[in-house]
Amino acid sequence: MTSVGIDAIEVRTGRLKLDLAETFAPEQGDDPEKYTKGLGLFSSSFPDAYEDIVTMGANAAHRLMERKGLEPEDVGRIDVATESSFDNSKPVSTYIAGCLEQVYDGDFHHANKGERKFACIAGTQSLDDAVNWILAGRNRGRGALVIATDTALYARDSSGEATQGAGAVAMYITEDPDLVELSTEQGYGSADETDFLKPNQQFPSVDGKRSVQVYLARMREALEDFERAAGDTHPDDYAFIPFHTPFPGMVRKAAVLGYRHMIRGTDVEDELADDIGRQPRRDDFDSREAFEEAMSDYVDDLKETDAYREWYGEAIDPTLSISSQVGNWYTGSVHIARVSALKHAVEEGRDLAGQKLLVASYGSGAQAEIHEETVQPGFEDELAELNVDEQVERRYDLSFSEYEQIHDRHNHEKSVELEPFTQPDSEFVFDGWGPMNERQYTYVE
Amino acid sequence: MTSVGIDAIEVRTGRLKLDLAETFAPEQGDDPEKYTKGLGLFSSSFPDAYEDIVTMGANAAHRLMERKGLEPEDVGRIDVATESSFDNSKPVSTYIAGCLEQVYDGDFHHANKGERKFACIAGTQSLDDAVNWILAGRNRGRGALVIATDTALYARDSSGEATQGAGAVAMYITEDPDLVELSTEQGYGSADETDFLKPNQQFPSVDGKRSVQVYLARMREALEDFERAAGDTHPDDYAFIPFHTPFPGMVRKAAVLGYRHMIRGTDVEDELADDIGRQPRRDDFDSREAFEEAMSDYVDDLKETDAYREWYGEAIDPTLSISSQVGNWYTGSVHIARVSALKHAVEEGRDLAGQKLLVASYGSGAQAEIHEETVQPGFEDELAELNVDEQVERRYDLSFSEYEQIHDRHNHEKSVELEPFTQPDSEFVFDGWGPMNERQYTYVE
Repeated sequence: MTSVGIDAIEVRTGRLKLDLAETFAPEQGDDPEKYTKGLGLFSSSFPDAYEDIVTMGANAAHRLMERKGLEPEDVGRIDVATESSFDNSKPVSTYIAGCLEQVYDGDFHHANKGERKFACIAGTQSLDDAVNWILAGRNRGRGALVIATDTALYARDSSGEATQGAGAVAMYITEDPDLVELSTEQGYGSADETDFLKPNQQFPSVDGKRSVQVYLARMREALEDFERAAGDTHPDDYAFIPFHTPFPGMVRKAAVLGYRHMIRGTDVEDELADDIGRQPRRDDFDSREAFEEAMSDYVDDLKETDAYREWYGEAIDPTLSISSQVGNWYTGSVHIARVSALKHAVEEGRDLAGQKLLVASYGSGAQAEIHEETVQPGFEDELAELNVDEQVERRYDLSFSEYEQIHDRHNHEKSVELEPFTQPDSEFVFDGWGPMNERQYTYVE
Repeated sequence: MTSVGIDAIEVRTGRLKLDLAETFAPEQGDDPEKYTKGLGLFSSSFPDAYEDIVTMGANAAHRLMERKGLEPEDVGRIDVATESSFDNSKPVSTYIAGCLEQVYDGDFHHANKGERKFACIAGTQSLDDAVNWILAGRNRGRGALVIATDTALYARDSSGEATQGAGAVAMYITEDPDLVELSTEQGYGSADETDFLKPNQQFPSVDGKRSVQVYLARMREALEDFERAAGDTHPDDYAFIPFHTPFPGMVRKAAVLGYRHMIRGTDVEDELADDIGRQPRRDDFDSREAFEEAMSDYVDDLKETDAYREWYGEAIDPTLSISSQVGNWYTGSVHIARVSALKHAVEEGRDLAGQKLLVASYGSGAQAEIHEETVQPGFEDELAELNVDEQVERRYDLSFSEYEQIHDRHNHEKSVELEPFTQPDSEFVFDGWGPMNERQYTYVE
């Protein structure tokens, strides 16, 4: 069986930062812990005036290509996943290829370019398409660039405003990858839902409570479907479980339900039985309500056990570190969760080679997908090349009125000129509109 | 090697018709032949007031599933290709699955749903993804529904107005398909172009002259790339060559250039040499301009030869019959060209089994893709199930003022209530908005 997966990954954050505790909370009259503890978010990233989904994606892809010594001819496919597209026909991948062709001698004229949209899950769907293309033997020796790029803006003063974010993740997909190999098996949980949507509008309409329920329900279906394909899962099977992270608090809810499901009928359930009893079984209850209440009590108790806390600290908490500093990147979110986890392992000096991740992606509307990944020998060399900490650290710290200006700048309904807060340096920048009303880009030395 | 391809196909036209010669031309003060001869178009399809991209796609998929005896459990993937999406986050595939779940006992909760956008080429990209998924061995015995659905509207009084159209094509992709098997080999021609785009707008901005040049340039690159993968092509290799057909006149331009390329250095070039000379070779000319002028003259002569006319009449003209009656369906266009060709073969009593098609897809922005398909034994049984002629025939013939009303009805910027011109019958219909501003659908018995 051919080994196919992610050979390299790059992360590009928007260059601006909104501090939720210091800057946002006081203006909203909120306790900062509403954000830092409740949501698990400390700050959000925003694009500067010269940044957008194209520049962030192109800059991530460029750094990846430079670092791996890739030429355009090595790339047979460029798929972009986004729910922040600014054109209803022309895909973002063509703009990104146009940027990259400014700095390479070769071109991408024989690469298949595409664009996928399905809320936050399209990045994983594009990764999947690229893997299938290689497994199908149609890549003619080339790899695929998969780019998840979004500017997640909410209407001002809406409930999602604190969960905004902006950034891109670029991945290079190949045979015999240097970072992780993907499992053939995958599980899906998917339904026609209206928890979060954008009917002909840039900013989402969100049913917050429903969107949490749908996330958990679809994730459970996906895990059950994955187990039908790959066999039962056990918490000990996975070094980390990166989830789609709209905000870390959402992952806390999902993690305990996942753990509950995985330990059912295992040694872990047995060992916990003295403390918190065994998991309720539906057959022991007269009504569905009584069963669900008992299960809810069990989960509350489970959450407080040492076994769960230890597992959460090892397998889940390390996946949240980048998200807590940059907010929701929509399609990129689960991919920065993977990076957070691998980075943590390197920092702790853990050799993960051969160990497995369970990767849990999600998009509103709604669909969850779960697959396994096997960490490859030498993964730490790949991680060592990332500069995400420096990028996060060097962001310009917006005042509240500056945040208001940049929100307007990126609002498609407004046409706001704004002096940038930062200075572009060796990167692609947006620099105005062309004759067909197309966005135009230049590489700034 | 596993044989993978299209097992079944269904076509669904919008229920209304605008007659270009009888109704449109007089209002524009134009000679009807501007449309019927120049563009090669006789009429366009439009959706009635209760139709849209979801109903057309769901109705096509429903008829396909009924006819093939499929249940939701047989479908592991639902991919929708469209450039007429009405939501920036939630994909059309979830709405279509929601419709189908109204009429089946089972559900699509474990099917991977997605949406692709790249002007008119996304239908072929989705077909390709489905084929790769099966070739990769990840389908767990299930097939994929691929649905190309669009309402191609242009601004009133814009140059593209006569090339509008609306309809959906549903395809079921499986191993050992009943209709056509796809080649592993494919060729791409792709560049960052601004010939046609929709920057945050429903109706396209089009540079008409440029869009013709780009279509031809990308198609040529794709053919060259295909030949690098699959070897040289020859006109005799293919029973039909279905092209993306924005209007039949565009295909006339592309066909002669394709023929010119394919006969170069072959017996056909030799046989024509007495009449029109041999093809100009770049090395025989001092300047690129002189070479291109000579080549242009050669192509003009080639177009008038009996050999070319006969080939065009056999391999190309039969692909245009549905398009000439329904207009441009964007993502569905190349797929109705394939249906037109196969339908023609059945009507002529030709047994195509084992013969090949060369399928040439295109999307502005811009990208062409070329692959081969092998017609499967028994293909005529599949074609016999289609009712596309009846659908085209029974369309309601709009007056010009009715056309103006229906254009407004489907204009996202307007909110126009309109009594339908036709009566829905055993089909999904759009019936209003839900609490999240989502479009809602019902099955009408």
